[in-house]
Amino acid sequence: MDFRSDNTHGAQPGIVEALVRVSEGQQTSYGDDAYTARVRDRLREVFEHDVEIFPVLTGTAGNALSIASMTPPWGAVFCHEDAHIQRDELGAPEFFTNGAKLFPIAGADGKLEAASVDRWIHAIGEEGRTATPSCVSVTQATEAGTVYSLDELRAIGDVCRKRGVGMHMDGARFANALVSLDCSAAEMTWRAGVDLLTFGATKNGAMAAEAIVVFKRELADAIAPRWHRSGHRLSKMRFLSAQLDAYLAEDSWLRSARHANAMASRLAAGLGDAVIRPVQANVVFARFNESTQSRLRERGFQFYEWPIFGEGAVRLVTGWSTEVSGVDAVVALVNELRGNE
Amino acid sequence: MDFRSDNTHGAQPGIVEALVRVSEGQQTSYGDDAYTARVRDRLREVFEHDVEIFPVLTGTAGNALSIASMTPPWGAVFCHEDAHIQRDELGAPEFFTNGAKLFPIAGADGKLEAASVDRWIHAIGEEGRTATPSCVSVTQATEAGTVYSLDELRAIGDVCRKRGVGMHMDGARFANALVSLDCSAAEMTWRAGVDLLTFGATKNGAMAAEAIVVFKRELADAIAPRWHRSGHRLSKMRFLSAQLDAYLAEDSWLRSARHANAMASRLAAGLGDAVIRPVQANVVFARFNESTQSRLRERGFQFYEWPIFGEGAVRLVTGWSTEVSGVDAVVALVNELRGNE
Amino acid sequence: MDFRSDNTHGAQPGIVEALVRVSEGQQTSYGDDAYTARVRDRLREVFEHDVEIFPVLTGTAGNALSIASMTPPWGAVFCHEDAHIQRDELGAPEFFTNGAKLFPIAGADGKLEAASVDRWIHAIGEEGRTATPSCVSVTQATEAGTVYSLDELRAIGDVCRKRGVGMHMDGARFANALVSLDCSAAEMTWRAGVDLLTFGATKNGAMAAEAIVVFKRELADAIAPRWHRSGHRLSKMRFLSAQLDAYLAEDSWLRSARHANAMASRLAAGLGDAVIRPVQANVVFARFNESTQSRLRERGFQFYEWPIFGEGAVRLVTGWSTEVSGVDAVVALVNELRGNE
Amino acid sequence: MDFRSDNTHGAQPGIVEALVRVSEGQQTSYGDDAYTARVRDRLREVFEHDVEIFPVLTGTAGNALSIASMTPPWGAVFCHEDAHIQRDELGAPEFFTNGAKLFPIAGADGKLEAASVDRWIHAIGEEGRTATPSCVSVTQATEAGTVYSLDELRAIGDVCRKRGVGMHMDGARFANALVSLDCSAAEMTWRAGVDLLTFGATKNGAMAAEAIVVFKRELADAIAPRWHRSGHRLSKMRFLSAQLDAYLAEDSWLRSARHANAMASRLAAGLGDAVIRPVQANVVFARFNESTQSRLRERGFQFYEWPIFGEGAVRLVTGWSTEVSGVDAVVALVNELRGNE
Repeated sequence: MDFRSDNTHGAQPGIVEALVRVSEGQQTSYGDDAYTARVRDRLREVFEHDVEIFPVLTGTAGNALSIASMTPPWGAVFCHEDAHIQRDELGAPEFFTNGAKLFPIAGADGKLEAASVDRWIHAIGEEGRTATPSCVSVTQATEAGTVYSLDELRAIGDVCRKRGVGMHMDGARFANALVSLDCSAAEMTWRAGVDLLTFGATKNGAMAAEAIVVFKRELADAIAPRWHRSGHRLSKMRFLSAQLDAYLAEDSWLRSARHANAMASRLAAGLGDAVIRPVQANVVFARFNESTQSRLRERGFQFYEWPIFGEGAVRLVTGWSTEVSGVDAVVALVNELRGNE
Repeated sequence: MDFRSDNTHGAQPGIVEALVRVSEGQQTSYGDDAYTARVRDRLREVFEHDVEIFPVLTGTAGNALSIASMTPPWGAVFCHEDAHIQRDELGAPEFFTNGAKLFPIAGADGKLEAASVDRWIHAIGEEGRTATPSCVSVTQATEAGTVYSLDELRAIGDVCRKRGVGMHMDGARFANALVSLDCSAAEMTWRAGVDLLTFGATKNGAMAAEAIVVFKRELADAIAPRWHRSGHRLSKMRFLSAQLDAYLAEDSWLRSARHANAMASRLAAGLGDAVIRPVQANVVFARFNESTQSRLRERGFQFYEWPIFGEGAVRLVTGWSTEVSGVDAVVALVNELRGNE
Repeated sequence: MDFRSDNTHGAQPGIVEALVRVSEGQQTSYGDDAYTARVRDRLREVFEHDVEIFPVLTGTAGNALSIASMTPPWGAVFCHEDAHIQRDELGAPEFFTNGAKLFPIAGADGKLEAASVDRWIHAIGEEGRTATPSCVSVTQATEAGTVYSLDELRAIGDVCRKRGVGMHMDGARFANALVSLDCSAAEMTWRAGVDLLTFGATKNGAMAAEAIVVFKRELADAIAPRWHRSGHRLSKMRFLSAQLDAYLAEDSWLRSARHANAMASRLAAGLGDAVIRPVQANVVFARFNESTQSRLRERGFQFYEWPIFGEGAVRLVTGWSTEVSGVDAVVALVNELRGNE
Repeated sequence: MDFRSDNTHGAQPGIVEALVRVSEGQQTSYGDDAYTARVRDRLREVFEHDVEIFPVLTGTAGNALSIASMTPPWGAVFCHEDAHIQRDELGAPEFFTNGAKLFPIAGADGKLEAASVDRWIHAIGEEGRTATPSCVSVTQATEAGTVYSLDELRAIGDVCRKRGVGMHMDGARFANALVSLDCSAAEMTWRAGVDLLTFGATKNGAMAAEAIVVFKRELADAIAPRWHRSGHRLSKMRFLSAQLDAYLAEDSWLRSARHANAMASRLAAGLGDAVIRPVQANVVFARFNESTQSRLRERGFQFYEWPIFGEGAVRLVTGWSTEVSGVDAVVALVNELRGNE
């Protein structure tokens, strides 16, 4: 009954089994191994593109390495004002870029709007002395649990191309967005203009594994030394790769995401007008008064308050292991408590 | 028959089982969980000291974070000229410290000698305009497979205390050194003057886990934000902690290290005068001519050439899973080949 | 008839003479010389405080060095959204701090408002994962040509003290603000809570000289190595110090500022309702239509457009060498042109 | 009688006069002014090359900005072990490059030897994991007062070209070397392979002015933003440019250098076998015992001890304003004292 985060779920059985198998025998360290090659092949198939990949342990590292490969120290990085890279990483992008400036931009429902991004890039570019526009970072699905439509992504991609800046996608909940849109991975990324993707697996069933997926080939050379030098190039790379391999095998990642999304939909449907944001992936924002929140906690339900969305706002996150019974239980309790008011 | 590195071994069964167990259920993200607390308690017992810990994924990150917590951007870091932090990390210490200078110092058998370190610190301190002496980093066991005696460590610790600089220990092969010296962990670290230790487990049976062990309490506040900001603070921390917990349980780490060391001793004994460096842990440096090297490779033995130790030098590393039969096989083959010359 | 900037004026005769005098004979390099000592003494007298000083060549360096001495790489720096440190330095604070985040805050008339700063510091501090509040930077006189009252400064100083963050003052036009308020330098700085001041002289008659004035003694040790390492510690320090010495001698700096302010007042009075911002120092913002702007330029008047204050906005800056005749001439022409509309 | 440094001399009359003239009237800030253009033209003529220039205040900044434009954060910079960039800048290159590694190399008489540089670049390049060879920095004239011959420079230039790394020249005493070799500026720089030169004027008669001279055009775009962001882009640029203009006018810089060199030769000739290094520019290293040193100081002579050249070593530097009488006086006194031993 823990709706705090999709970070709190364990790892899926298939992924655990893969780790058990891969712990036997010996393999070349540092990535020159069959698992990493297999993950690369799988991702090339998934994305229908000749991608390069860099497995990393955390999304923070994936984002910062990606941004740093496209952004000089005097660069400007444009993102949503609630972006993880701006709010939650204690300045990881600034660290990895050696001091670039982030420009957090407002946007409804957690999404950047293309015209707004265009105006910002133009304005900062015109100033000339503030920072050099370098990169736009979108989160898909967003921190607000919403999902950019393909048109919305393409519009931003067009702006980036027009303005000559790079486009990064923070895909911590990539799978959840993908199944929500029911489109191809290619359409949702490089075909829309994305140059680099932080492909998240940790929130969707892996133990701890993400991968930087490089669509714009040249950027790989800018990532590699930074990856090494920041201590993110794991020596026993296969333990990351084995997870990603199992994650991708037999579309397991898509099933996990569909389940998590379905649980969120069910939850949102049950909570009715307590829900305060559109639910398009696996995150539900609702408003509960203090008493309801206390009672929920007493009963063992866990969730985070989300004050940036107003008083009483809470965030409920579903994951691959969220059970229908858990969802129904919280819905029942909330409605009981609300009914009594 | 892979003697390339202790990075190429898998993970020990006990650690794999621990990961399987911990993949079930949900736990608070970001370290506030029972496993991390348990690891802290175990390490406090092992080190007989009220340590703070920071689990990290790689030794490179552990070293760089440790050094950065003790070294200003204009600081001087003193290490052996063959130190991993100098040769193999593409400048990770320089990245994390924002530009400190490393001063690589020569020393026989891969070890820094206290008087030499003292002279260097004094000289650089006197210059005043080069860098500010901040930190000495020793590797135990060294990159050359040797082990500092307690007296040698204490002598360096005394120099650090006298000169007012910090002391870091790169313990990628900490366990191998510890069992080699057959002393307590406390004697080999903080009692000798060590302020921060990168406690390695990956080379000795963990899948991928290391921990920064903090003896000098105040340094923890300097590590925490850097740990977060560099993307090394894992959200599903328990997957690191579960490994470290199993690694430490029932002295399993000491048994692994003793085994690896024993295999190295056996190997060295068998290779006789082909061995070119003292063998005090789990690394053997030998000299084989080209023909012997080719024949060994043909037979499926793997190892790295080690040109910095001269022509024909190779490095053979044993690990927790090295089998007696493997050792005896390479010894037999080498002696056969050498006998034929 | 150049109203573009107070950077475009030459240097005052007294300062030029001082440079001529100091170019003879030999003096110890690197600041250990009589001129620097004399400047320190003068500033101690001016500020009625035992200050430390660091002469620098540019305000950008002075600001960035000051901020860096109070701000860790993961720190948060709060400033007005139009602050020079945010808009015009291509990320100098980010460079010198190794990646701190700037938080530009809106405020009427170019001034930060204490309650607003307090809310921001509180919010970012509460977030815990964005950046660590470290420093507030106020510009006095502001980029908008306004001047914080003593009460306004004290209110911000109180917030800084309460929140445990440092307070920096960008004093590129310090003298202009000081004479405008007609208070003591102590009241306008450390008595109001300022820890570090970038004391500007270049815009008020020096050739090229600014000084970091340190009120909070401990910060000097954080500035010194950064000053050296960033190439801002001039070897022939007396050429900076001689300028500052002449600048301060016989209150010459106050006279220059009074003159510049008087010229701005005169200009503003003459321009009447074309003036769009309060004029409290030596900067006038006015609105002229396109035709008026062209005609002024044809006649040889120079000024910058200032689009961030709206369409048709221009900035007119007076300096120590602005002549009454120049002011009267532009007033006459503007009124003539406007009268013809 | 001050032989401590060529930093301790004042500024030449011609340069002082130029500063007086340029202090009148108004000019565009930030370099778009006639003086800077004139300096660029003069230097294009001097170097017979279409150079770009960046006036800066200190050699430290000039060197660090140059090196940073050619060196990624994971780069390797090769220099002589006594190079100013290694010993005297508190890590300025590391700051500006965001953490590159300097590799100080031994070489007789303060000079790097091409074969040695080639071996180092090859070795570090082969390692692959230490740093990426990026740049070689030579000082001309060297910190030891010697001068690379054209053949020696070309040999290093060839190595750089072969190895694909940049070549930087620290020309703090450029003029002294140039007149010593009696060759053209082009031969001593870009024709020999130099990509960037820190053209020093401060030690040879300017008040405080140096210029980065860019031979390899593309590097200018890498310097410009760093120049701005590090606070080294002076707003009243003409005060730097006016000095450089007067410095170059009528070959005044060459006359100053010839005089300084001649004084050094005279001094060396007079000191005979007390001189311990070849004297090829304006720096003399000699050995005096303690008693001689004390007596010299009592008589008012000033000089620095130079312990890195052994016990009793001192450095005597002549400058544009060193008088024959001063040289003869110290020679007489030294010989008197030595005669009495």
